[in-house]
Amino acid sequence: MIIVNTGNGKGKTTAAIGQIIRALGQGFSVCLIQLFKGESFYGEQKILTGLSGLDFFSYAKEHPFCIKGVSMEQAKESCKPAFDKISELARLPKQYDFIVLEEFNIAIRDGFMDAAEVINIIKKLAEKSTVIVTGRGAPQELIDIADLVTEMKEVKHPFNSGVKAQKGIEF
Amino acid sequence: MIIVNTGNGKGKTTAAIGQIIRALGQGFSVCLIQLFKGESFYGEQKILTGLSGLDFFSYAKEHPFCIKGVSMEQAKESCKPAFDKISELARLPKQYDFIVLEEFNIAIRDGFMDAAEVINIIKKLAEKSTVIVTGRGAPQELIDIADLVTEMKEVKHPFNSGVKAQKGIEF
Repeated sequence: MIIVNTGNGKGKTTAAIGQIIRALGQGFSVCLIQLFKGESFYGEQKILTGLSGLDFFSYAKEHPFCIKGVSMEQAKESCKPAFDKISELARLPKQYDFIVLEEFNIAIRDGFMDAAEVINIIKKLAEKSTVIVTGRGAPQELIDIADLVTEMKEVKHPFNSGVKAQKGIEF
Repeated sequence: MIIVNTGNGKGKTTAAIGQIIRALGQGFSVCLIQLFKGESFYGEQKILTGLSGLDFFSYAKEHPFCIKGVSMEQAKESCKPAFDKISELARLPKQYDFIVLEEFNIAIRDGFMDAAEVINIIKKLAEKSTVIVTGRGAPQELIDIADLVTEMKEVKHPFNSGVKAQKGIEF
């Protein structure tokens, strides 16, 4: 099964985190692979690392649009180990009930990963596991093969009135 | 601050759960008040009860639309303690950084709680805490006073092809 959380609104990552908590509560094993999320900047990372049944990997910790001084080429390079990780999971026998690919839509959108290659791997992973992919701008080819797609649509956001990202809410 | 997760798509509750995990990770105190979610049916309930910094209350465990033999009158009655709980929180000095009102939109939509009364309490709570309200069909008066509103929009859902709710995904 393939689940996609996309759209320009808030809730794509938090819904994936909530889904992880739900799956762990039902005794499922989960692998979370995050891109562009730093190491311990986000509140959820501190809780997730302490939960049993979850393996948590963080790659490509800086995105050029967020962190000055990171080139597109560096970001592409730093996404490679994440691609290798999902390739390995696709090749091996089933390791996890749920595999969460956080912000992989962004990696595809920005050309850090090849859409066709990633989608091919997601298809293979979905033969064994439930795969959850997050990030705005999900490619149409991914939406086409997905079973469950939610668009998190921004109705109102304080960013639009100049409010900055708030601790505990955005990170 | 008032945050609303609404819409007909998946992710309203899981995004609230993810938000709780994020807030707890940043050291905030959280109160989760759930309606219509049973006692231990949902995977997340098993994990959440074990997390420190979170107080978790579950009321009105059965919704007439989901459980046969529960009348609308019984549901209304069983929502009263939840209303008393939020009234108490509004009256007391600040107890929590985050207060999550799960499925309160449904309680309002179905006439189990009075929209104006609940919204009045939410306003008071928001003077002290960040309040997150979930459930489809958020009343316009709530959207009007909210700071951050996301519509979880269903793009594709396996329910539409006859697939039933799946463990670890829907509960």
